[in-house]
Amino acid sequence: MGPGPSMVAPSVLQALGKPVLGHLDPEFVKMMEELKTMLRLVFQTNNEMTFPVSGTGSAGMEFCFVNLVEPGDEVVIGVNGVFGTRMVDVAERCGAVVTRVDAEWGRIVEPQQIADALKKVAKPKVVAVVHAETSTGALTPVEEISKLARDAGALFLLDAVTSLGGCPVRTDDWNVDAIYSGTQKCLSCPPGLSPVSLSPRALETAARRKKKVQSWYLDVNLLASYWGQDRVYHHTAPISMNYGLHEALRLALEEGLAARFERHRLMHERLKNGLATLGLSIVSQAGHQLWQLNAVGVPAGADEAALRRRLLQEYSIEVGAGLGPLKGKITRIGLMGETAREENVDRVLSALGAALR
Amino acid sequence: MGPGPSMVAPSVLQALGKPVLGHLDPEFVKMMEELKTMLRLVFQTNNEMTFPVSGTGSAGMEFCFVNLVEPGDEVVIGVNGVFGTRMVDVAERCGAVVTRVDAEWGRIVEPQQIADALKKVAKPKVVAVVHAETSTGALTPVEEISKLARDAGALFLLDAVTSLGGCPVRTDDWNVDAIYSGTQKCLSCPPGLSPVSLSPRALETAARRKKKVQSWYLDVNLLASYWGQDRVYHHTAPISMNYGLHEALRLALEEGLAARFERHRLMHERLKNGLATLGLSIVSQAGHQLWQLNAVGVPAGADEAALRRRLLQEYSIEVGAGLGPLKGKITRIGLMGETAREENVDRVLSALGAALR
Repeated sequence: MGPGPSMVAPSVLQALGKPVLGHLDPEFVKMMEELKTMLRLVFQTNNEMTFPVSGTGSAGMEFCFVNLVEPGDEVVIGVNGVFGTRMVDVAERCGAVVTRVDAEWGRIVEPQQIADALKKVAKPKVVAVVHAETSTGALTPVEEISKLARDAGALFLLDAVTSLGGCPVRTDDWNVDAIYSGTQKCLSCPPGLSPVSLSPRALETAARRKKKVQSWYLDVNLLASYWGQDRVYHHTAPISMNYGLHEALRLALEEGLAARFERHRLMHERLKNGLATLGLSIVSQAGHQLWQLNAVGVPAGADEAALRRRLLQEYSIEVGAGLGPLKGKITRIGLMGETAREENVDRVLSALGAALR
Repeated sequence: MGPGPSMVAPSVLQALGKPVLGHLDPEFVKMMEELKTMLRLVFQTNNEMTFPVSGTGSAGMEFCFVNLVEPGDEVVIGVNGVFGTRMVDVAERCGAVVTRVDAEWGRIVEPQQIADALKKVAKPKVVAVVHAETSTGALTPVEEISKLARDAGALFLLDAVTSLGGCPVRTDDWNVDAIYSGTQKCLSCPPGLSPVSLSPRALETAARRKKKVQSWYLDVNLLASYWGQDRVYHHTAPISMNYGLHEALRLALEEGLAARFERHRLMHERLKNGLATLGLSIVSQAGHQLWQLNAVGVPAGADEAALRRRLLQEYSIEVGAGLGPLKGKITRIGLMGETAREENVDRVLSALGAALR
């Protein structure tokens, strides 16, 4: 019940243990197509270039930046937690000139802040924000920011690691040009792959680069030949992980996205109500609290690390620590994918109550 | 029975399907230590920085180059197949000035060629070769090349993707500074991780860089804090894949490296003898043929693609195509890890005999 990996359905674990086919086997190639189709449904996009990068979520972040950014490009990045901070580091390693738009950790990045920053940037190439900040529990509404990016002639890049599969992520409706996620959050598959999607505009930007993409492993111009219709060997895909993701996506679509989001919302409400009766509350900005990741304020005087240790050792429940300025001040309770079930909410509430008594 | 993924033992598949722990859970952290210890035994090294990169073999290649190479550095690379060619591309994307040492595909890179190339390079930073060229079946002896690199003041970088676990790889005895492998070859684990090891000299080179490593995901200076004693969160490790690798390494060490290598040698001999009775032979350079990957010459007039298709459809046996200049001329039969068993050798020989009749 921490910030991910989330709990995994038995059928997904079974899929991971299936006998391994070759990465160019016709049966595996057929499964790759199904994966792309299901990912498009989950991302709510028609983007052809929608597939799982062979690395974890941070590799997906790097995939988006290395393909779109060339040395000297101006990039505007919203920072309201660990993952915005990481985006700045990744973009700078691509040679980007970054304009950083900071918001207090636990609060959202306001569209007005991005608008103000864009006024000071001559030729923004990319505007990037984190949708659901796993480190703070804040959900930044991104539709307006996307519009600002487009009006400024920039591509819009979105971190959907913790949002995808747990709350609405409308890639096409929101005009998102590059988006990445992870498997181990609301898709409830073990970590190991990073679903990504690039718009035709983003693909064109990558194809027209002056300089080769600095990462061979993550170069979309090469990956397009493997995940596209050509099936040109690039690298050996993590076959077992793809089996697992295939089954996890099947389960998500069987439940239905709307029902899945509603389940996440209800479990968040159940947790929030239970916390109130314990005298606890969620400290992220009101009106923008994530359903799937709950930043619970620790009572003054309580030892946060000791609380987590007790939950793990006495109740076999893993929750997450606060990071950065929130270290020691919050405990992060994840209600992602398979974890977002009544019995889990009730169990963590009862354990918290006992541990804080 | 292609060039990998190889067959996977049932207990490794079972390990992949185990319930998922958190990537910072004390039990998982203990397993990470065991993984490092077992990888050191398999790599025959005492290098502290020995761990699995969270990507496939090509990510391991990129890991080695991005950490050691800075823009303008001179790098000498032996090229006798697909993977040497790939190293050139990866190194150039790091800004390296590459001196390419070509050998005919199917033959080894001769130490004299490297010696000649080094005479023309002012200040070589890295010398890199592929130990076992999966695309051609040639095993380049590397001890002498390593000595040449050291005498020239360069680091020695080795691709051990297909060699590790199938034939001797003596990282410390051979003074290898950076080495990478894959899980899906002679370690017989599904693809998804890339075991790597860096010598103290290599680590120091990475620590003293003028410019940050261009990949955040593969920066050893950050990874050292996660895989080292600090356990600072970097990225979420592919937990299930690490379970699988743990069990695959346990099996390899239980068998014993010497016995495992001997098994690979014997299966290669068995295949070679059987091929001879069919009038077929291995076309890679005599005296330097890989045990684990056999490049079988296709008889004049035979359709190589049709042969592979028949083996797959009628006999459920996957073998590999020739690549580059060897396309259509060879079929690649892998005898890696769990695949290197008498029953598999006999089965592919009997299928080949029937399909060519």
